[in-house]
Amino acid sequence: MTPDQLRAILEEVRSGATPIDTAIERMKHLPFEDLGFAKLDHHRALRHGLTEVILGKGKTPEQVLAIASRLLQKSPNLLVTRADREIASAMKEVAIDAEYFPLSNAIRVWRDRNIIGKGIISVVSAGTSDIPVAEEARITCEVMGNEVDAVYDIGVAGIHRLIASSARLMEARVVIVCAGMEGALPSAVGGLVSVPVIAVPTSIGYGASFHGLAALLGMLNSCASNVAVVNIDNGFGAGYVASLINRL
Amino acid sequence: MTPDQLRAILEEVRSGATPIDTAIERMKHLPFEDLGFAKLDHHRALRHGLTEVILGKGKTPEQVLAIASRLLQKSPNLLVTRADREIASAMKEVAIDAEYFPLSNAIRVWRDRNIIGKGIISVVSAGTSDIPVAEEARITCEVMGNEVDAVYDIGVAGIHRLIASSARLMEARVVIVCAGMEGALPSAVGGLVSVPVIAVPTSIGYGASFHGLAALLGMLNSCASNVAVVNIDNGFGAGYVASLINRL
Amino acid sequence: MTPDQLRAILEEVRSGATPIDTAIERMKHLPFEDLGFAKLDHHRALRHGLTEVILGKGKTPEQVLAIASRLLQKSPNLLVTRADREIASAMKEVAIDAEYFPLSNAIRVWRDRNIIGKGIISVVSAGTSDIPVAEEARITCEVMGNEVDAVYDIGVAGIHRLIASSARLMEARVVIVCAGMEGALPSAVGGLVSVPVIAVPTSIGYGASFHGLAALLGMLNSCASNVAVVNIDNGFGAGYVASLINRL
Amino acid sequence: MTPDQLRAILEEVRSGATPIDTAIERMKHLPFEDLGFAKLDHHRALRHGLTEVILGKGKTPEQVLAIASRLLQKSPNLLVTRADREIASAMKEVAIDAEYFPLSNAIRVWRDRNIIGKGIISVVSAGTSDIPVAEEARITCEVMGNEVDAVYDIGVAGIHRLIASSARLMEARVVIVCAGMEGALPSAVGGLVSVPVIAVPTSIGYGASFHGLAALLGMLNSCASNVAVVNIDNGFGAGYVASLINRL
Amino acid sequence: MTPDQLRAILEEVRSGATPIDTAIERMKHLPFEDLGFAKLDHHRALRHGLTEVILGKGKTPEQVLAIASRLLQKSPNLLVTRADREIASAMKEVAIDAEYFPLSNAIRVWRDRNIIGKGIISVVSAGTSDIPVAEEARITCEVMGNEVDAVYDIGVAGIHRLIASSARLMEARVVIVCAGMEGALPSAVGGLVSVPVIAVPTSIGYGASFHGLAALLGMLNSCASNVAVVNIDNGFGAGYVASLINRL
Amino acid sequence: MTPDQLRAILEEVRSGATPIDTAIERMKHLPFEDLGFAKLDHHRALRHGLTEVILGKGKTPEQVLAIASRLLQKSPNLLVTRADREIASAMKEVAIDAEYFPLSNAIRVWRDRNIIGKGIISVVSAGTSDIPVAEEARITCEVMGNEVDAVYDIGVAGIHRLIASSARLMEARVVIVCAGMEGALPSAVGGLVSVPVIAVPTSIGYGASFHGLAALLGMLNSCASNVAVVNIDNGFGAGYVASLINRL
Amino acid sequence: MTPDQLRAILEEVRSGATPIDTAIERMKHLPFEDLGFAKLDHHRALRHGLTEVILGKGKTPEQVLAIASRLLQKSPNLLVTRADREIASAMKEVAIDAEYFPLSNAIRVWRDRNIIGKGIISVVSAGTSDIPVAEEARITCEVMGNEVDAVYDIGVAGIHRLIASSARLMEARVVIVCAGMEGALPSAVGGLVSVPVIAVPTSIGYGASFHGLAALLGMLNSCASNVAVVNIDNGFGAGYVASLINRL
Amino acid sequence: MTPDQLRAILEEVRSGATPIDTAIERMKHLPFEDLGFAKLDHHRALRHGLTEVILGKGKTPEQVLAIASRLLQKSPNLLVTRADREIASAMKEVAIDAEYFPLSNAIRVWRDRNIIGKGIISVVSAGTSDIPVAEEARITCEVMGNEVDAVYDIGVAGIHRLIASSARLMEARVVIVCAGMEGALPSAVGGLVSVPVIAVPTSIGYGASFHGLAALLGMLNSCASNVAVVNIDNGFGAGYVASLINRL
Repeated sequence: MTPDQLRAILEEVRSGATPIDTAIERMKHLPFEDLGFAKLDHHRALRHGLTEVILGKGKTPEQVLAIASRLLQKSPNLLVTRADREIASAMKEVAIDAEYFPLSNAIRVWRDRNIIGKGIISVVSAGTSDIPVAEEARITCEVMGNEVDAVYDIGVAGIHRLIASSARLMEARVVIVCAGMEGALPSAVGGLVSVPVIAVPTSIGYGASFHGLAALLGMLNSCASNVAVVNIDNGFGAGYVASLINRL
Repeated sequence: MTPDQLRAILEEVRSGATPIDTAIERMKHLPFEDLGFAKLDHHRALRHGLTEVILGKGKTPEQVLAIASRLLQKSPNLLVTRADREIASAMKEVAIDAEYFPLSNAIRVWRDRNIIGKGIISVVSAGTSDIPVAEEARITCEVMGNEVDAVYDIGVAGIHRLIASSARLMEARVVIVCAGMEGALPSAVGGLVSVPVIAVPTSIGYGASFHGLAALLGMLNSCASNVAVVNIDNGFGAGYVASLINRL
Repeated sequence: MTPDQLRAILEEVRSGATPIDTAIERMKHLPFEDLGFAKLDHHRALRHGLTEVILGKGKTPEQVLAIASRLLQKSPNLLVTRADREIASAMKEVAIDAEYFPLSNAIRVWRDRNIIGKGIISVVSAGTSDIPVAEEARITCEVMGNEVDAVYDIGVAGIHRLIASSARLMEARVVIVCAGMEGALPSAVGGLVSVPVIAVPTSIGYGASFHGLAALLGMLNSCASNVAVVNIDNGFGAGYVASLINRL
Repeated sequence: MTPDQLRAILEEVRSGATPIDTAIERMKHLPFEDLGFAKLDHHRALRHGLTEVILGKGKTPEQVLAIASRLLQKSPNLLVTRADREIASAMKEVAIDAEYFPLSNAIRVWRDRNIIGKGIISVVSAGTSDIPVAEEARITCEVMGNEVDAVYDIGVAGIHRLIASSARLMEARVVIVCAGMEGALPSAVGGLVSVPVIAVPTSIGYGASFHGLAALLGMLNSCASNVAVVNIDNGFGAGYVASLINRL
Repeated sequence: MTPDQLRAILEEVRSGATPIDTAIERMKHLPFEDLGFAKLDHHRALRHGLTEVILGKGKTPEQVLAIASRLLQKSPNLLVTRADREIASAMKEVAIDAEYFPLSNAIRVWRDRNIIGKGIISVVSAGTSDIPVAEEARITCEVMGNEVDAVYDIGVAGIHRLIASSARLMEARVVIVCAGMEGALPSAVGGLVSVPVIAVPTSIGYGASFHGLAALLGMLNSCASNVAVVNIDNGFGAGYVASLINRL
Repeated sequence: MTPDQLRAILEEVRSGATPIDTAIERMKHLPFEDLGFAKLDHHRALRHGLTEVILGKGKTPEQVLAIASRLLQKSPNLLVTRADREIASAMKEVAIDAEYFPLSNAIRVWRDRNIIGKGIISVVSAGTSDIPVAEEARITCEVMGNEVDAVYDIGVAGIHRLIASSARLMEARVVIVCAGMEGALPSAVGGLVSVPVIAVPTSIGYGASFHGLAALLGMLNSCASNVAVVNIDNGFGAGYVASLINRL
Repeated sequence: MTPDQLRAILEEVRSGATPIDTAIERMKHLPFEDLGFAKLDHHRALRHGLTEVILGKGKTPEQVLAIASRLLQKSPNLLVTRADREIASAMKEVAIDAEYFPLSNAIRVWRDRNIIGKGIISVVSAGTSDIPVAEEARITCEVMGNEVDAVYDIGVAGIHRLIASSARLMEARVVIVCAGMEGALPSAVGGLVSVPVIAVPTSIGYGASFHGLAALLGMLNSCASNVAVVNIDNGFGAGYVASLINRL
Repeated sequence: MTPDQLRAILEEVRSGATPIDTAIERMKHLPFEDLGFAKLDHHRALRHGLTEVILGKGKTPEQVLAIASRLLQKSPNLLVTRADREIASAMKEVAIDAEYFPLSNAIRVWRDRNIIGKGIISVVSAGTSDIPVAEEARITCEVMGNEVDAVYDIGVAGIHRLIASSARLMEARVVIVCAGMEGALPSAVGGLVSVPVIAVPTSIGYGASFHGLAALLGMLNSCASNVAVVNIDNGFGAGYVASLINRL
């Protein structure tokens, strides 16, 4: 509720056009409604100017569908993350054009394909195994209106490959770097570019990688100062933050 | 070395103006020099267009001074982080105008005060005890040419204080949030604003805060999607990333 | 054994009505009996005035049934937690009216539905995915004689939703808050209400949530002072403690 | 701001007694004021009906004094936790009757000594070394208007001592149990009493106690269902929650 | 090789009865043989006077069988731990009298049933769910020639049940205590008895029990001084150590 | 209270020699008394037949002295562990013959020097740095009436030194092994001897030794089955358990 | 790109044989090519003189096959690690002579069987269960041109077995030691030999082995100075490093 | 004891030159002697052909001196690690030529300066703050007879500095890389060179570096296969292993 809306209500109160009880009621009436199991916030996308997103994990297909159909009434684009194949099939009922990305378990409805990001978002992956997370980031950036340049498989141990890609990386306005194992790539990329780097540790690895913990700690301790980090395997979050930055 | 510089050298080779050995030598000559204990990279600031920064921790006052005096020959501004009082005193020798911030152990030489950031960076702290970290972030943003709005002491347990500050937060182009204990403030702020939020866990707390680990994990698992995280107590890193974003 | 019971026995000894050996035997005879694999304590419910509870996990259906049928002879209500569908089916043999809650893996026999709690217990969940744990708490509170108000899906990142629910929360005598991810909701709720808040970290999340550890640490470090915490996913424990508080 | 306050403002708007801008301003004017480094919330105690509390840790003596003198203008009682001797000396300036408890680093101004808790709060410590934490809990309970029964040094390895104290424990309306090392006492106490038990792990111990982690985990996994846990060494938090419960 | 054996060889060398090369060879010849994948040490049982034991985990049924048949040629008793049903079936081929204990995944060949332990070993479990680990301990003690008294399901939260069993516990020469969750039982038992207590943390529990870590830490920090600890779920190890103690 | 004592009281009740109230009082009267800050259990040593022990850590010199002087009235021997030099000086007041061991911070009053242990306890240390912990174990064993053989500085990396000591080790009835770093020595010793081995991880080491955690985990996972473990640096606990075993 | 290659290009530029743009292009043209999902570096083996290796984990069979067929065009030998049976079957299409090792999930194409290592690499395993990891190391060493001596099942608890093998170990030029549980074997072996020891912690064990963490920490804290460590279960890495050392 | 030595003794036995008891005694007489607190192994250096080393930490100056003076009687070179200034001063008494390196707390007696390593050992540090650890490695390599090339301050975030040093790195026979923070440098160096890389995590950093844990995990998960790791801050161990490799 903005000051202007508040002023409008108060003016109606003063003029007598609105009774006090009605005013109180309207002032209480925040813009979301209740589906019983999940409070939808129709204005969130409006406020943020962003695509609606549903976290599929921990929800039944029925719950996802109910939320999705409501959201699609007001928003052309929709992203469902951490969705399994069962949810993906069900989604066809409410959006025949829903794409399913099995590697990254994402579902995308992408009807408004206008580019609103001001530059290119570069999505980098260290190894072939990190691609599912990188893909989640790429899908997110695209559905949020960004041009994406995917640069895959340039690990730190093959530094000439990184350097060979440096020209492409330097054209980006924001860079997302997905890496498992030692998580060193964001530091190396961060040293090459002069834009913000969003680092995504992946759970790829074994033994003392501890499901992404090694990569996470590595990225948090990056010796490059232009690196910020999101949760392990959180390609979506990286894409979301990068999209916000690219809209500025 | 840019393609243009390379082309220039090659043209001199072709014209015979430059012998091949000289060309090879110049092509090898990368723009940094060696102080023995620390390789200075004079062009880093140039490449990134950024203030020079020295991490004071782990360096002797002599080492800091040697690096600082070199850097100040080419750069008007300089930041020394994690510096103790002894380094601060020594710094007066090379820069009489060096400011020392004892709470956050930072030293700043701030000669070029032009604003180059496009909007306001809001620096938020959850509690009084988080102010040293927030201050490091603020100092960094300022010396890198940004207008800063400091909003201190608005914790999650006093949600009306957060809401009372929401108008100010909504005017920011980037928001930095410093919080210890449960580290919940970035999520709450992230839900209020539609710009990127850089979260800084602080080591404030006791017991199961485990020197900032609780806050760090909380921020990485934020239910707000516009939050990226830097290392515990890394106010400088947050200020650096936010400054990069604010220049876009 | 109360002093009064002890006095009664001693008086019978003095009067000769009870031989010494019998007295020793009775004094030794504590009020539980032995099923071989599990010592039942029929008087525990009596002592605590509480519903009987069986932890289903780690027990065979046969073990659960044997314990359940014994308990139901003396207690109208019974709760089995962490029970799978197989146990649920078997339970029908001893209690045709046993309800099974598959989301939270709980079985409830609820014959005495008198309200003995003095006020309302509010059960809050941060996200849709936290509902199974919240439901376990709700079921526990109900079977222990409390009126429950379930307020689901009001996360910290949507702070206006929390505020919209604040009136309902303020009517509660005890509040249970279930949250995964960063576990910030109990702090925010704790700042709104002036009654005890029992926080339940859930294992919902991924990556650096470390199966509920992030939420647990967040809640233990809550900046709201009216928050106490139970084990990860322990909706039952929260409901139990809240019920005890609500009987005071 | 309560609905009644809101209604009063609106009625003044309707009657013309208050101009709209003034109304907006008053509606925005939340009841806290700004000292620069810490936003005071004078109404928090009012809302919660509780003693004011200042966390001394991370604040300078000057900051604590400034906050304390403000709070004492409106509240008869005040507690400063985690305060060192320097703060304690300084406090004498603003409250000559301030008591300092060096074991638990607490300062207490206790002018209103009315009992508002409905029953006894029992504060139990497992060992002599846990007494500082237990004392912090006791001081908190007292200053918040409760009768306290301190039962110290009854560890699990001396179970007959625990049983000898059981009658006293059974008279309590709430029990606080402070224990380091393996943290087993709350389970044993929880099995004896039928009221809520607030468990406080202490950092007492060495080696694999990991500064209270062992006790914390032990308490979270208590096999007694009436146990809720607060942070390591958080005697204040335990006293606060217990006081809230005892007011119900 | 004992000094006496060495002397015998040397005397043969001096007398010329044994050539030097043969002597060297014999001195090198240690008493184990090689099955290719596992070096059998036929004399280990002899040296320790103990039952032979095979760790089934990580071995194929073929490997277990090959080792078992060799061992059974020289030893009447045999224990296979961490064996699945497939190994159990295969074992029937080499020992028709092999018993399989599916709860604890142990296989036992128990031909020599002489009692060699000097007293009773008491095997205590805290809950029904801890019985599989307790059973592994019991089986081990029995096959190693001890009289065992199993006392199951006496948790710390039901302290009167523990006290009711104290007379039995006090008759034991060694006590094994298996407990999950908070792992508090060994401390309580340790305070009751004056003999060594071997504590076995079990992985029973959920959430912050972290697969037995909470119980392990609790036991290591026991406030009873007569408690020593073995690995999580290591009922076998506890039984082995207890058997050694009981032979003294 | 034994059944015999109970019977005696009951008989007095029956004969009228003891009034009922007195009987109840006596039955309640458990054998410990209260010093205010620490409940002394004069009969514990009696029950266990053991030396009295005071944990110095977390107690003031006054508290230690008060407890010590009481205990020395009934017990000839006394051990104070984790005591600093200040406590050691103070102890001279109550026991002029108190020895102070500065390496292991132990104080010992050793008046009854009878040997009650049936065999030799071997106390082994891996390195010179582990000696303080080993010494605490040795002192404990001695004051509890055991003959001790100290075998210091035989690490696993010098396996011939271990073997050279094997004859001495094989003469022990119980072996205590103190080791930091990788904590491998108990496994090697456990393979050599056929008696119980009590392993004590020490906090010696740096980096990834994590203050004894590496050694602790190593010992818990020992491939020798006759190893049980006590807390990090808990030389006292090892000596106590070993003494109990050696009395059997 | 070597200085010589650079000189050659520059000479062609000077002579006019190569236009500047072509020279720039060639100088940029690093020797790898792009398969879309994985950048192959044909010269890596050349540079390192080593067998090509593909990490199978996280790649689809199609991806592995595509990479493998490319690599086999230029390299006679190939190793695929962490490959499942499905990949193994598929590999037959591109290399009929591919061997599959199901224990260690490795696939090997071994066409060039020349020995290039200068001495013997000894591969030691502590227990039967560690053999899969040891085998991965052995396979790697062999395919990289080394003579391997496999010494299996010589744990620290059977120290005479270790000593019996010491002569063989002393003949090795590099020793690889694979051990789970407490990970003590590398220290013992390191003390016996005077060559580098590469230690591989394995995830064998249970409970507090924490999937190899105990062994890893043990090895990092080895009291033998000639031990370096690779990741948990990383038999391949150990074989690779050992092969590099053996080529020196 | 080698087979030849054994044969010699046996031949003396056969010839009667040596009585049997003398022979047994000699065969038992292993080549170390006992200083009481530390068993010296004079032949270790002989066996390994290496410099003697004393770990100063945890030893008193007296203990270090006693060991040092013994060792210097038989060995020209000596290294004392983790020694403080007090030990350094004391060392002058036994070796006037002892050098003290205060940054790395090492003392070196370097009398035999022959080069026995076959190539150059490159010692690389990521940052200025890592130099103390790198220096410990350098000192160790030198005293063990190696030519060392120290390449300091080439972090991953300044990748052109790394590349500028690549020619020097490629000339090394072994490379030691010391790095704190994210520990990424070994991976990058490992990709550049084709020789073994010994990685040393340093405890440099703050926050989530967790005293070197982040760097340690990063190095263990290195995507370069030629990297092996030693303990945090263990420059000595890295120098020792590298020296062994360089002697091959």
